[in-house]
Amino acid sequence: MGLRSFVDVAPDSHFPLENLPYGVFRPSSSSSASGAGGDASPPPPRPGVAIGDFVLDLSVISGAGLFDGPILKNSPCFLQTSLNMFVGMGRPAWKEARLTLQRLLSADEPTLRDNTSLREKCLLKMTEVEMLLPTVVGDYTDFYCSVHHAKNCGTIFRGPENAIPRNWFYLPVAYHGRASSIVISGTDIIRPRGQGYPMGNSPPYFGPTQKLDFELEMAAIVGPGNELGRPINVNEAADHIFGLVLMNDWSARDIQAWECVPLGPFLGKSFSTTISPWVVTLDALEPFACDAPVQDPQPLAYLVESKHINYDISLEVGIKPAEHEHPAIVTRSNFKNLYWTLTQQLAHHTVNGCNMRPGDLLGTGTLSGPEPESFGCLLELTWNGQKSLSLNGSDHKFLEDGDEVIFRACCKGKDYNVGFGSCTGKVLPALP
Amino acid sequence: MGLRSFVDVAPDSHFPLENLPYGVFRPSSSSSASGAGGDASPPPPRPGVAIGDFVLDLSVISGAGLFDGPILKNSPCFLQTSLNMFVGMGRPAWKEARLTLQRLLSADEPTLRDNTSLREKCLLKMTEVEMLLPTVVGDYTDFYCSVHHAKNCGTIFRGPENAIPRNWFYLPVAYHGRASSIVISGTDIIRPRGQGYPMGNSPPYFGPTQKLDFELEMAAIVGPGNELGRPINVNEAADHIFGLVLMNDWSARDIQAWECVPLGPFLGKSFSTTISPWVVTLDALEPFACDAPVQDPQPLAYLVESKHINYDISLEVGIKPAEHEHPAIVTRSNFKNLYWTLTQQLAHHTVNGCNMRPGDLLGTGTLSGPEPESFGCLLELTWNGQKSLSLNGSDHKFLEDGDEVIFRACCKGKDYNVGFGSCTGKVLPALP
Ligand SMILES: [Ca+2]
Ligand SMILES: [Ca+2]
Ligand SMILES: [Mg+2]
Ligand SMILES: [Mg+2]
Ligand code: NI
Repeated sequence: MGLRSFVDVAPDSHFPLENLPYGVFRPSSSSSASGAGGDASPPPPRPGVAIGDFVLDLSVISGAGLFDGPILKNSPCFLQTSLNMFVGMGRPAWKEARLTLQRLLSADEPTLRDNTSLREKCLLKMTEVEMLLPTVVGDYTDFYCSVHHAKNCGTIFRGPENAIPRNWFYLPVAYHGRASSIVISGTDIIRPRGQGYPMGNSPPYFGPTQKLDFELEMAAIVGPGNELGRPINVNEAADHIFGLVLMNDWSARDIQAWECVPLGPFLGKSFSTTISPWVVTLDALEPFACDAPVQDPQPLAYLVESKHINYDISLEVGIKPAEHEHPAIVTRSNFKNLYWTLTQQLAHHTVNGCNMRPGDLLGTGTLSGPEPESFGCLLELTWNGQKSLSLNGSDHKFLEDGDEVIFRACCKGKDYNVGFGSCTGKVLPALP
Repeated sequence: MGLRSFVDVAPDSHFPLENLPYGVFRPSSSSSASGAGGDASPPPPRPGVAIGDFVLDLSVISGAGLFDGPILKNSPCFLQTSLNMFVGMGRPAWKEARLTLQRLLSADEPTLRDNTSLREKCLLKMTEVEMLLPTVVGDYTDFYCSVHHAKNCGTIFRGPENAIPRNWFYLPVAYHGRASSIVISGTDIIRPRGQGYPMGNSPPYFGPTQKLDFELEMAAIVGPGNELGRPINVNEAADHIFGLVLMNDWSARDIQAWECVPLGPFLGKSFSTTISPWVVTLDALEPFACDAPVQDPQPLAYLVESKHINYDISLEVGIKPAEHEHPAIVTRSNFKNLYWTLTQQLAHHTVNGCNMRPGDLLGTGTLSGPEPESFGCLLELTWNGQKSLSLNGSDHKFLEDGDEVIFRACCKGKDYNVGFGSCTGKVLPALP
C-alpha cells in the first residue's frame, strides 16, 4: 500500500502523498487563512500543494520556517504570487521541497499533525480556495505530436494521400500560441466570432463560430530556462521541465480553416486555452514512465536521446450539455500516444537558440489514440461534422452553448493514483 | 520653422521637440545620474524621452514633481523599469505627458533651462546610456500586410497563379511570434542552426542556416488592453495603440520553408527579433498621416473604418559587411505600403475576444513596396538567392557572418523630422 499521511486521503484520490502537485490559490475571504477578520482586500495568491481534499498553504509552511533544507531555507520562492521563482530554481530545489513536504505530511510526523493552530492555518479545504494560473506564462507553444491526430486532421483537410507532410517525421511540428488568453480550469468560454470559410465565390461567413471544438492535450511547465543562443541538449532537457498539466486548446474549426494558410492557426485558437490548476511533477510521474514509440525514420542526432520515454497517463473527456445532469464520456486516450517526447520537443524548440523562461507552457498537441474511441477532438470524433456523437441521447457535432467540457487525467498505480484532477470549461453564447 | 528647445537639436535630427519618443534606458555607471559614486550595483532602468542627442530621464522629472497635470501628478508610471504602466494609462495620460514635456523642454521655459543641477541630473547624452526594451512584451504578433511582399513570397514559394491566397484580401493574416527572443537594437544575432529543406528523398539538412535574412517591419506597441471576450472596435482601435518602433524580423528561410507546413513559421523566426529603442507616438506621427490604400473587395463590416489612414514614413535598409567601413543601402520603402491599417489589424486580432495587454507588440509584416528597389527582405531582393546583390562591390545572396543590418525610418516634414533612429544587429557565426 502507498505512503500514509495524517491528512485523510481517499483510496481513489488523485492527490495522495505520492503526488503532491503544485498550484497557486487564493483562500476564499471567509476561510481561516485569509487573514484578520474584517479585512476587505482579498488575500494575495500563494503557492500550495494538493493532499487529498486539502490544499497545503506553502506560504504558511515557509513562514513557519519548516522548509529547513539548504536550498529552500531562506528562499522567498513560496512567498510569491506564482510558481515562476520556484520552478526556475531547478531539480535540486524541487527534490528538496518534495522530501520536506512528504515528511511534514506523513502520518508519523508530529510537526503539523499535532499542532492544531498551525495545521488549521496551513491546511485548507479545496472547496474553500480559488485556484489561479500556476505560473505567469511568458510564451506558450503548442506542438502537434500525436501521429493519429496528424493523420486524421491531414486526411480531413488534405486527403489521405497527403495526410501527413514529410517534415512531421523529422521534427516536432509546433506553432506559437497566445499567452494572454490562457485561463484556469472553470473559466467560462465565450463562443468566439470570426470569419469562416466562404461557400464558393461568396464573401466569407462572419459570426459566432459554428464549429467550436475542444482539443485534449497536456502541457509541460518549463523550469529553468536557457540563455538566448544556447540550445538545451535533449539529454538534459528533463531538468528543464517542472511538470505537467491538462490543457484544453479550444478551437474554432471554421475560423481556423479559413485563416490558417499560409501562416498557421491564429484567431481560431487565441480566444481561450484552459489549463488545469495542479502541476504534477516529473518526479511524481516517474513510476509511470514507459517506452516512447520507436521512431522511423531515425531522428537527426540532436533529437536522439538516451532515455526515450513517455508516461502512462489515462485521459478522458466528458461533455455535459446544459440540460443534462451528468457528462457523457466522449473519448478515452493516453499521454503515451505522443510520438515526439517532451524532451525532444524542448530540444527542438531551442536548437535555433530560442530561449525558454521559467513558467513557459509547451502543449503536446491533441493526444489522439489509434482507435476512433480515443480521438482527441470533435473534428476527429465527428469527422468534421459528417457524423454525430450521441451524448446520453442528445446528438452533437460540435460544441453547443451550455456544454461543459471536462477533461480528467490519472496515472493508476497498484496502491495509489497520481492524478491531475480536472480541466473544465463551459461554453457561453457569443456576444450579441 | 519647428518648435524650439533649449536643448541643442540639429536640423536633421530624428528627435526634435515635435517627436519626443519614449524609451527605457540605464545610465552608464560612469554617468552623473547613476547615483552616489562608489555604488557597484548598476542603476535601475527607467523611462526617458529622446531630445536631440540627449535623453531626458523621466524618473528624475517625476521625482522633482514636474509632472503636475491631473493624471500624472501622483502617478508612479515613470518610476517603473518599463513603459507598461504608462502605455496602459491611455491617450489622456499620453497627451498630458506630451504637453508637459514640450513645455519643460521649450526654449522659453526656465524650469529646467535655468536649473543647472537639475538639468545635469535629468539630461544625459545618448552616448552615455544603454537602451533597453521599452516594454515587457506579453505577446508578440506578426502580421503579413504588404500586398507586394505577399505577392512576391507567394510567387517564389507557390508560383504566380497561387501567389496570394484568397483569404489575404478578407483578413489581415498574422501568426503568433516568440516574445522571449525579442531583443533591443544593437544586440548581436547568433546565426541559428536547424533543419533545412531536404534535397529529394535524403534526410533534411542540419546545420547553420544558409539563408539568413532580415525583414523590414515596423511594430505597434499596444496601449490599454481589452478584457478577454470583448473585442476592440475598429474605430476605437487607435486609442489602444501607443506608438511605433522599427522591427527586424530576422528569418532563416531554409528552416522556415521546411517547418512551416501546416502550422506556420516557428524556429525560422524565433531565434531573435530586433526592435528599435524609441517608441514614436501616434500623436507625433499625426502630421504625417496619409490615406491608406483603397481596399477591394470591400472589407467585412467589422473592418470598415471611418478614418482609414497610414503614415508616410520613409524606410531604408543598409548592410555593412564586416570588412566594409560603410553600409550599402539595399532597399528604400515606406510604411504606407501597408494594405491593412494598424487599426484594422487590432480590430481583427480581438474580434474573437482575444485580449491585448499593455506593451504587446504587433509587427506589420515586411513592408515591401511595388518596385524591386523597395522590396523588404533578401528573399525578395535576390529572388530566393537566384541573383546577387552588390554591396559596394561585395556580392551577397543572404546574410553573411559579420554583416551588420541597419534599418532607419524617418518622417520628413518641411521644418523638422520625426524619426525613429535606427534598428541594428550584427550577425555572429553559429555555435560550433
Ligand atoms: Ca492544439
Ligand atoms: Ca515577418
Ligand atoms: Mg487555444
Ligand atoms: Mg523574429
Ligand atoms: Ni507569447
